[in-house]
Amino acid sequence: MTDTTPRHDGRTPGQLREVRITRNWLDHAEGSVLVEFGKTRVLVAASFEAGVPRWLKGQGTGWVTAEYEMLPRSTNTRSGRESRKGKVGGRTHEISRLIGRSLRAVIDTKALGENTIVLDCDVLQADGGTRTAAITGAYVALADAIEDARARGLVAASAKPLTGSLAAVSVGVVGGRAVCDLDYPEDSTAETDMNVVMTGTGEFVEVQGTAEGAPFDRALLGELLDLATTGCADLTEKQQAALAGTPRERQR
Amino acid sequence: MTDTTPRHDGRTPGQLREVRITRNWLDHAEGSVLVEFGKTRVLVAASFEAGVPRWLKGQGTGWVTAEYEMLPRSTNTRSGRESRKGKVGGRTHEISRLIGRSLRAVIDTKALGENTIVLDCDVLQADGGTRTAAITGAYVALADAIEDARARGLVAASAKPLTGSLAAVSVGVVGGRAVCDLDYPEDSTAETDMNVVMTGTGEFVEVQGTAEGAPFDRALLGELLDLATTGCADLTEKQQAALAGTPRERQR
Amino acid sequence: MTDTTPRHDGRTPGQLREVRITRNWLDHAEGSVLVEFGKTRVLVAASFEAGVPRWLKGQGTGWVTAEYEMLPRSTNTRSGRESRKGKVGGRTHEISRLIGRSLRAVIDTKALGENTIVLDCDVLQADGGTRTAAITGAYVALADAIEDARARGLVAASAKPLTGSLAAVSVGVVGGRAVCDLDYPEDSTAETDMNVVMTGTGEFVEVQGTAEGAPFDRALLGELLDLATTGCADLTEKQQAALAGTPRERQR
Amino acid sequence: MTDTTPRHDGRTPGQLREVRITRNWLDHAEGSVLVEFGKTRVLVAASFEAGVPRWLKGQGTGWVTAEYEMLPRSTNTRSGRESRKGKVGGRTHEISRLIGRSLRAVIDTKALGENTIVLDCDVLQADGGTRTAAITGAYVALADAIEDARARGLVAASAKPLTGSLAAVSVGVVGGRAVCDLDYPEDSTAETDMNVVMTGTGEFVEVQGTAEGAPFDRALLGELLDLATTGCADLTEKQQAALAGTPRERQR
Amino acid sequence: MTDTTPRHDGRTPGQLREVRITRNWLDHAEGSVLVEFGKTRVLVAASFEAGVPRWLKGQGTGWVTAEYEMLPRSTNTRSGRESRKGKVGGRTHEISRLIGRSLRAVIDTKALGENTIVLDCDVLQADGGTRTAAITGAYVALADAIEDARARGLVAASAKPLTGSLAAVSVGVVGGRAVCDLDYPEDSTAETDMNVVMTGTGEFVEVQGTAEGAPFDRALLGELLDLATTGCADLTEKQQAALAGTPRERQR
Amino acid sequence: MTDTTPRHDGRTPGQLREVRITRNWLDHAEGSVLVEFGKTRVLVAASFEAGVPRWLKGQGTGWVTAEYEMLPRSTNTRSGRESRKGKVGGRTHEISRLIGRSLRAVIDTKALGENTIVLDCDVLQADGGTRTAAITGAYVALADAIEDARARGLVAASAKPLTGSLAAVSVGVVGGRAVCDLDYPEDSTAETDMNVVMTGTGEFVEVQGTAEGAPFDRALLGELLDLATTGCADLTEKQQAALAGTPRERQR
Repeated sequence: MTDTTPRHDGRTPGQLREVRITRNWLDHAEGSVLVEFGKTRVLVAASFEAGVPRWLKGQGTGWVTAEYEMLPRSTNTRSGRESRKGKVGGRTHEISRLIGRSLRAVIDTKALGENTIVLDCDVLQADGGTRTAAITGAYVALADAIEDARARGLVAASAKPLTGSLAAVSVGVVGGRAVCDLDYPEDSTAETDMNVVMTGTGEFVEVQGTAEGAPFDRALLGELLDLATTGCADLTEKQQAALAGTPRERQR
Repeated sequence: MTDTTPRHDGRTPGQLREVRITRNWLDHAEGSVLVEFGKTRVLVAASFEAGVPRWLKGQGTGWVTAEYEMLPRSTNTRSGRESRKGKVGGRTHEISRLIGRSLRAVIDTKALGENTIVLDCDVLQADGGTRTAAITGAYVALADAIEDARARGLVAASAKPLTGSLAAVSVGVVGGRAVCDLDYPEDSTAETDMNVVMTGTGEFVEVQGTAEGAPFDRALLGELLDLATTGCADLTEKQQAALAGTPRERQR
Repeated sequence: MTDTTPRHDGRTPGQLREVRITRNWLDHAEGSVLVEFGKTRVLVAASFEAGVPRWLKGQGTGWVTAEYEMLPRSTNTRSGRESRKGKVGGRTHEISRLIGRSLRAVIDTKALGENTIVLDCDVLQADGGTRTAAITGAYVALADAIEDARARGLVAASAKPLTGSLAAVSVGVVGGRAVCDLDYPEDSTAETDMNVVMTGTGEFVEVQGTAEGAPFDRALLGELLDLATTGCADLTEKQQAALAGTPRERQR
Repeated sequence: MTDTTPRHDGRTPGQLREVRITRNWLDHAEGSVLVEFGKTRVLVAASFEAGVPRWLKGQGTGWVTAEYEMLPRSTNTRSGRESRKGKVGGRTHEISRLIGRSLRAVIDTKALGENTIVLDCDVLQADGGTRTAAITGAYVALADAIEDARARGLVAASAKPLTGSLAAVSVGVVGGRAVCDLDYPEDSTAETDMNVVMTGTGEFVEVQGTAEGAPFDRALLGELLDLATTGCADLTEKQQAALAGTPRERQR
Repeated sequence: MTDTTPRHDGRTPGQLREVRITRNWLDHAEGSVLVEFGKTRVLVAASFEAGVPRWLKGQGTGWVTAEYEMLPRSTNTRSGRESRKGKVGGRTHEISRLIGRSLRAVIDTKALGENTIVLDCDVLQADGGTRTAAITGAYVALADAIEDARARGLVAASAKPLTGSLAAVSVGVVGGRAVCDLDYPEDSTAETDMNVVMTGTGEFVEVQGTAEGAPFDRALLGELLDLATTGCADLTEKQQAALAGTPRERQR
Repeated sequence: MTDTTPRHDGRTPGQLREVRITRNWLDHAEGSVLVEFGKTRVLVAASFEAGVPRWLKGQGTGWVTAEYEMLPRSTNTRSGRESRKGKVGGRTHEISRLIGRSLRAVIDTKALGENTIVLDCDVLQADGGTRTAAITGAYVALADAIEDARARGLVAASAKPLTGSLAAVSVGVVGGRAVCDLDYPEDSTAETDMNVVMTGTGEFVEVQGTAEGAPFDRALLGELLDLATTGCADLTEKQQAALAGTPRERQR
C-alpha cells in the first residue's frame, strides 16, 4: 500500500476527478443541477409536485423518489432505449431505488407535507460513477427545490424537510490497490467495487460492496471505507460551495 | 398583415429565436450537437454502426434513422417516462419517424455502404419547436459522423453519402398573424401550425400543416411557406458557420 | 404536364378511383360505413359514449377520437397483429392521430356536451390511400352517429356539433406526373406523396407532403394542391349523395 | 322437451340461423371467406406462407394456425382494442387456440410440406357463435388456400393435405330447453353452453361444455350432442355447396 | 376393451395415481393445500379479500377467481418465466379461466357478500393433469377459506356460500385404450384428451374433449365420461377425508 | 449492548432461526433444494443447460444466473403476479441480480465449459430474509447440479467449477440492538438492515447495508459484520451437513 505510482490519469489513490456542480441548468424545474465527475455528466431535475402516491395519502407525510436513466449514446457504444424495449432494465431499477432511498435518509417527510419531489437523473455521458454523481448532484437539486417551495409558500417557512446533507462516491480495488472515484477504465477492471453514500456529518447511509473478482477480507473493507469517508467529505465541501454561490437565474 | 407590433418576446414575424449549435458536445459519439432555439435545447448524438437492419441486409445500402424523446422534466410540468409506462407514445413515434425520413432525403444510402447512423435526439428542455430544432441539429451531427467515418476509413474517401443540407422550422398563425419559429406560448395558442423541412437549396422535404382552430386557405398557406423558406435559409447559414468552425476536440 | 397517357389503370391524372360509401354496414354501431376507394376497403364504426376522457371532465365539452388499424391480411403479404406484438406501431399511431385531429376540425365540442365519439377505422383491404378513405368514410359515420344521438335525445335537438364536412385524398408525383388518389402500385413508386384533408367549403385542415425521392419545389406543391382541391370536392359530393339516401336499416 | 314454442326469433330448437358463406371476399389472400351466422359476421383470411415456425424446422411437416380477434365495435357496446392495451386477453387466446387445433385435426401436415397456413378470423359483427362461425368459415378458406397452393405448384398436385371437412356449432340450454346455434340473447341467458366441432363424417374433434348455471347430467349432455350432430351436418352441406360454386374472381 | 395389460406404471385403466391433499401447507393464506396426483404437485393458496372487482361493485355479490402458473422448472426442461416475457401465455390464461369458472359453479356469490376469494394455483412440479389437480385442491382450499371467513365473522354464520363440492380428472385414449388420470408420458401420446370437472353429486360442470389424433365417436366419448365419473367420485372421497381431518395449525 | 433480553421469538441476538435444507425436493431439476429459515420457505431449482447467452458464445466459458420471484400469497396479504402486470418489479430484478452475481463469485466459469446453470428461487412463504435463504439454498442446489453434470459427463470429471462455498444472512439493528437473521416483524421495524454474503472461508462477497432510519457509524457497521460472520459460518456448517447426507432419490 506504499505503492506511489500515479493512477492511469495521474490521480493519487484517494483523489477525486474534477467535480463540477452547475445549479439551475434548466429553466423549468424547481431545482436542477448538471453534475460532472470528470467526463461523467448527469443532469438532475427536481420536480416539486402537490400530492403523494396513493399508498401514502392522508397521512400528512411527503415523499421523495428518483428515476435514473442513461441516454442511449451516453456510453462508448450505443445501447437501445428502454422505452423502445418496453421494459426498464434491472440495473436502471436498482439504481433508481438506491438514489431515492438514499435521499429519503436526509428528509423529514412530515416537514414536507403531502408533497412529492421527484429527482430525474439522466446520464448524458457515462465514464464510471454515474450513480454516485447522480446522488451527489441530486442532493443539491433537492435542496434548491425545497428552498423554492419554501419561497413560494408551498412548504411552511418554519419547516425543515432537509435534515442533513448527502454525498456518494465509488471506491474499489484496481490493480491490487484501493482507489477512490473510479472512472470507466478503472471500474471495468476493478476486483472489488463499492458504492458508499454518506451524510455530511460522516455517517453511512448505504454501503454496497461487491467482489467482482476474489472475495475481500475485513481489512480491505476497512481501507475502502476510509477512502470513501475522505471522498464524501471532499464532495460535501463542493456541494456547500455550490449552494453558497448564486445560481444561474431560473425562469418559469 | 401590416401589423408591426412586436411579438411577445420582441421578435418580428419572420425572426428566429437565438440559435446556438455546439458541435461535439459529447466525447463518445461519432457526431454530437447541442442545438438551442432560444430556451429549447436538444442534445443530438449520431452513432455510426456497422451493419443495417435485417430487411436491408445484402443490398449494399446503408440506413439512417432517428429516435426522439423528451426528458420528463424538459417541460413546464413533469410528464412520466415512456420507459416506465412500457410504451412509446404516438407523438414520440411520429416525430422520430419524421426526423429519420427527413434526413434520409439528403443521404445517398448506396454511398454509405452497409452502415447505419442512428440520430438520438433527446430534448433536455422544451419551449416549442423541439422537432425542428432536432432536425436542424441532427443534420450537423450527421455531417460530423460521416466525416468521422470517412477519416477512419469506414466509408470510402471518394464516397459522398451526404447529397445536400437540411434545416427545419415551424411557422404558424398566432393572434391572426403568420410568424416563424414559435416558442411554447405562441405554439399553444396558434390557430394554424406548420412544420417545414427544406434543403439548403430551398426545396421542400416535408410540409406538415395542421389547422388547430379554423381551417386555412391557399393564400395563408402561401404566406406560411414564404416565412418557412426564409427561416430555413437563415438556419442553413448558421449550420454552415458551425460546420466551418473547429469543433471541441472529441475524445474516444 | 401535357402528358395525356392514361395511368396504369386507365385513369386521368385527376380522376378518383370508383368510390363507394355504404352506410350502416353494421347493426350495433351508432354510425357505420364501409368505404371503398377502388380495392381499398375500410370499415368505420362510430361509437357514441357518455362521458369524456379524464383530462376533459367537468368542462362541458365533448371529444372525438379515432383508432386506425389494418387487419393482418389486408395487405398483399400478411403482417403480424399489433395486439400480438404487444405494441402499436408508429405508423398506426400517426394515422390514428391524424384522423382524430382532422375530424375535430369540423366539430363544435361544446355542442356535443360531455360525450365522446370514437371512430374505429379498420382496414379490411389495403390498396393505397387507406388513411384518406378512412377520413372520408369517418365523416359520414360521424354525421350518422350525431343524428342518432340527436334522435335519442342524447344531444340537444338545437345543438349543431358538426360545423362542416370533411374529405381527404392523396396526391403525388408518379413517373414525373402529378396524380390524384394513388393506388398501391402508384404509391409505392411515387417520388412525392401528399395527403390533404379539406372541408366541404374547400379549405385546408391538414396538408402532409413528403419527398420520398427528390425534394420538391413550390410550383409542384401548387400543382398537387390543385389536384387535391378537385379530388376533395368530388369526394364531398359523394358524401352528400350517400347522406341524402336512406341507409340500410340499423337494428339495435 | 315436447315444448313446441318457437324460439325468440321464430326458430325451432334444432334450427340454424341463416348461414351465408361468401368465398374470396378479399383480393389478396390465398383463401378468404365472409361467413355469416345470422347477424354474426366473421371475415376469415387464409395466408399461405413458405416456411414453418422455428420449432418445426427441418421435419418436412407444415403448420396450420389461427388468430381470432373481435373488432372493437363488433359488439353492442364498444370494447377497447387489445393492441392498445398491449396484451391479448384470455378469451382471445383461448379461441385462437381452439380454431387452430380444430383445423389441424383435418390436416395432414406431412402433405403440406414445410409451409404454414395462417387463418385470420376477425369478427366484424358479433351476435353469438363467433367461434363456431369462424371455424366453419375457416375450413372453406383453408380449402381454397390449399387449392391455390396446388394450382401454383407450392404443394404437390398429388398431395392431399386436407383429410376431411370440419364444421362447428354451439348448442345450449335456454329457458330449460336444448337449442342449437344460440344468438347473443340466447347465449347470454343460457344455463349450459357447449361448442362442438365435428368432421364432415360426423365424428367429434372438440367438445367443450360449460355449466353456466346449474351443473348438467349425462342425459342432457346426450341431448346437446344430438343437436350438435345435426347442426354440424347442416353446416357441412352449406360448406360443400359454397365450395362447389364458382367463387368471386380473386385478383393478386 | 378387454385389454388387461397394466398401464406403464402398473395402474389399471380406471385407477388414479396416489393422491395426497395436505391442508394449510402455508401459514399466511386463509386456505391452502398442497395437492399431489403422483408426481404432479400443485400449491393452492386461497386469499380472502374484502371488496370485488369494479364491474361487480354495489350488487351485493362476491367473486371467486383463479390464477394458474407453472414454476419454470416444474417441467422436465426449464421454460422461461411469463413475468420475464412480459406476457401471460394462452395456455396459462385458458387454464386460469377454467379453474375460476369451475369453482364459481359451486359458489352462491350472494351468500359470499361483497368479498373476493382468489385461488392461486402454482405448479411446483408437473407430470400431467396439473389443471385437474389444481381444481381438486382448490376446492379444499376454498372450503377452508370460507370456514375461516365465517369463523372471523367476515361472512355471516348462516350464509352457505358453498353449494356443493367439486373435483376434476383427466381421461383419454392411450394406446387405443381409455384410461383415467393420465401422467405426462401418457398425456403426451394420447390420441384423445379430455378434462372433466364434476360436482360431488356426479353432475358435469365442464367437459373439454380434444381429438389430438383421430376424431372420436359417440361411443368412445361415452366410455371416457364413464371413467371420469368414477375418477371424480374417488377424488370426492379423498377431499372429504382431508376436510374431515384436523389440518396443520395455521399461524397468522 | 449488554442487553440480554431475548428477542420477540426467544432467540439471542446472534442466533439463527431453525434452518432446514431439503435436497432434491423436485424430481426433474438437476439440483433442487427446499430451504427454510424459520417460516421463510424458498424452493430453489438448478437447471443445467447446454450453451450460453449470445454475448458469451465462443469464449469457452459458462454462465450462472438466477431468477427470484415471490408467489402472490407468500406474503401476509396477497400481492399481484408480476406476469399479469406485464413487468418485473425493481425489487425482484435487484434480488435476482444479487443472487446470480453472488453465486458467480464461487464459480470458475472456464471449468464449467459452455454451459449455463439457472437458479430459480421461488419464495413459497416469506417471513424475512428471503434473499439470504435463497442464496444459502441456491449454493446447495448448484453444487448438486454440478455433481449431476459431472456424473453425466457434461462437465469433465477433472474440472472444478465450484471454487468455494457460499452462504448469506441478514443482520440489522432492531430496537437499538444488533441482531442476526431478522424475521419479518424484526425486519419491518429495523433501523439498519444489512445483507451479507460470505464464502465458507469467511471472506466477503457482498455487503449491502442500508440505513432505514438514522444513518449508522463505523462502530455499528463493525458490530453488524461480526454478527454476519458468525451467522454465515453457522449456515456453512448446515450446508456441509446437508451435502454430506444422502439426498432423496431424484427421478428423471
